[in-house]
Parts: sequence; structure tokens; C-alpha cells
Amino acid sequence: MVGNTLATKLVQIGHQIMMGSRTANSSAGQEWLRSVGGKAKIGTFADAAAFGEIVFDCTNGANSLDALRQAGAANLREKILIHVSNPLDFSTGQPTLTVCNTDSLGEQVQREFPDSLVVKALNTVNCALMIQPSLLPGDHNLFICGNDAAAKGEVTGWLCEWFGWKNTNIVDLGDITGSRGMELWMPIWLRLFGKFGHPRFNLRLVLASDSPT
Amino acid sequence: MVGNTLATKLVQIGHQIMMGSRTANSSAGQEWLRSVGGKAKIGTFADAAAFGEIVFDCTNGANSLDALRQAGAANLREKILIHVSNPLDFSTGQPTLTVCNTDSLGEQVQREFPDSLVVKALNTVNCALMIQPSLLPGDHNLFICGNDAAAKGEVTGWLCEWFGWKNTNIVDLGDITGSRGMELWMPIWLRLFGKFGHPRFNLRLVLASDSPT
Repeated sequence: MVGNTLATKLVQIGHQIMMGSRTANSSAGQEWLRSVGGKAKIGTFADAAAFGEIVFDCTNGANSLDALRQAGAANLREKILIHVSNPLDFSTGQPTLTVCNTDSLGEQVQREFPDSLVVKALNTVNCALMIQPSLLPGDHNLFICGNDAAAKGEVTGWLCEWFGWKNTNIVDLGDITGSRGMELWMPIWLRLFGKFGHPRFNLRLVLASDSPT
Repeated sequence: MVGNTLATKLVQIGHQIMMGSRTANSSAGQEWLRSVGGKAKIGTFADAAAFGEIVFDCTNGANSLDALRQAGAANLREKILIHVSNPLDFSTGQPTLTVCNTDSLGEQVQREFPDSLVVKALNTVNCALMIQPSLLPGDHNLFICGNDAAAKGEVTGWLCEWFGWKNTNIVDLGDITGSRGMELWMPIWLRLFGKFGHPRFNLRLVLASDSPT
């Protein structure tokens, strides 16, 4: 759902998009392709990674590393990899994280693909909000992290240009170890989702008015 | 520091307070007692738990269960135990949680002291903010959770009356398993603390204006 939402938005604003799946002609891929009037391509994870100048990883967190291995390190080399996935496991009733605290999925991905520029972003909000932050009133924040400052700067610009985020609302949490906190937001988010009964919420950081930032 | 801040505030507004420590006459306890002009008592954890109608646990999370055992289940029976501690471990350089994801310190405390009414609260903000939320501009949120609805209602009222929180800014995360999310905020909080260089911040939940809450 996240991948479809982001890809559809990117098609709508004129980008050339290839949606990757485990198989080249998955029925889910074909259905998405029809939903955008055929104005995109579908293929395997490897096809999509080879095609893209920029790669979004919106896979289910439990399958994320496996999907990226299928995409192939060579196809991802020196590319910005926008890592949206969360390492959530819903199999036990109460959702848990498959990695947390002393490591994170973002770090695992960066370690396994050291020649890619992994930028963790967008994982803390519902997909409708990802591409339309104005669904919520006023300012609210998006976190970003990654080891490469230039790549983070590019992604920050794209989040603003493509999806409508305000630059001043994007909070840089530093290197890829910032993924720990970003992924730990998920259990809180899911609890709030259960409370509110809908996913149309986010957090806004409130700072003392005399604070230097 | 958290315990001193809360206790000093409670003394200032006229409550009878006993500060518990490992030993009855700890130098830290005596120093705090002097700082409030002697208008309180100090004692062991057990003395304090026996003295209090309400008990605040502001111990270092790593020692929380041990301190509560010293306080004694009998002294805590049928009392509201406001659990402020976070299970943080700073011993390895990068702060980590000693329990998380599938369990939490709040749950551990409630399990070990089933006859106490554990209410997790205040753990997500710096101690200066705990007792003076107006240090930040506008609305910002405090989470609360616990198994006993009446106890949560009482604590919510006290947070408003004693410390100045707005009732509408206190977000009930349900039963004590809500501690998981509340404690998972710590790694994010610490990252933001490092970024901002000061602890005078908090989060505000922003909901879609058409949302039912």
C-alpha cells in the first residue's frame, strides 16, 4: 500500500516509475499499473533497482533485506535508497519489532549495502500523509536520517517538492543509527492508531521559545 | 534529580512528603531536606512507601524493581504507584533500554506488585517540564497508562492540579502495556536532546481536523 501510494503520486507528477515485485508480472503489480493508466512499468525487484536513479524501499519490513538482496547490490550501487520500511511483526497478536534498541532495520540495510546511500524517511506516518502532509492542520514533523549529508539534503528537497513537506518540518536525526528512534515510533504510533481509530495523525515537536534551534 | 524536582514541588504546594533512599539518612536525602528548609521527611524506601498515601517511583530504571522490593509489597499494597522511571542503560556509550518491545518496566513493576495500582506517567519529559508544562508554548502532550481506570483518573487530576497540565493534553494509552510505547519514546527523546542541545521540548499530537477525538 505504501509503495502503491508513493508510486502513484510520483507517476502523477511526471516521473518515470518502475514498480518492483518478487515476480516480473505479479497480479498486484498489474493491478497497480492499470490504476495509473499504464503510465509506468512493472518488473522484478532487480529490474526496478536497475531502472531507477532513486530507489524507494517500501517492502514489508520482515522481507526488506531479502527483497533488497533480490534487487541486487550492483543495481543499488551509489544510488540513494529511501528506506521507508518498518521491521514490524504482526504474527504474535501484539505488534512487535523484529529488530530494535541496539540495532535497526535502517542500519542493517546500510551495513549490507555499504555502497548505497541509505536515507531513512517517511516511515513514521501513514502513506496518505506521506504524500499530502496538508491533511493535518498546521505544522507537524517528519524525521530523516542517514550517513550521507548530501543524500539527505537531496531527499529533503524531494520530500518538499514532490510531496509538499515544509523544509522546516523535516528533522534530521543524524546518521543511520537515527533509524532506531524512527522505527521505535511505530509501537507508539500503533497504540495511538488503536486509540484514535484512524491513521490521520502525526507528532509535532514543541520547543521552548527561547531555544536556539 | 526527577525525584527531587517532583518532591520539592509537592512540598511547595503543601503536601507532606517523605523522600526514600537506600539508607535512612543518605547524604543526598539530607541535602534535599535542607533545600526545602526541612519541611519534609527522609527515610528508607520502606519508610517512604509506608508513609505515603501515594508513591512516586523516580528511581533509576536499572534499580527500579530492586528499590520497590526494598520499599516492600505490603507498604505499596492498594496504593497508587506513579511510575516515572525509564529502563535506560547508559553503560555502553549509546543509551539502550534494558527491557523493550515485548515487555516494559511498567509491566514488570505491575506484575511484581499486583496489589498496587501502577500508573505510568511523566516519563516522557524532562523533570523541569513535568512540574511546569508552561515552559513550552501552546499545547503539548503527556501520556499515561495503567490497568486501573479510577487510578488513572486520579493521577490525571493530580497532574493538572499539582503540576499545571491541561486535562485535554493528557493522552491515555490504555492498560499498563502502554508503557512499551511510553518507554520507547526515550531513545527518540535522547536523540532529539542531543540534536537540540537542551531538554526543553516535547511532542504535540496533531490530528486531522475531521477526526472524531
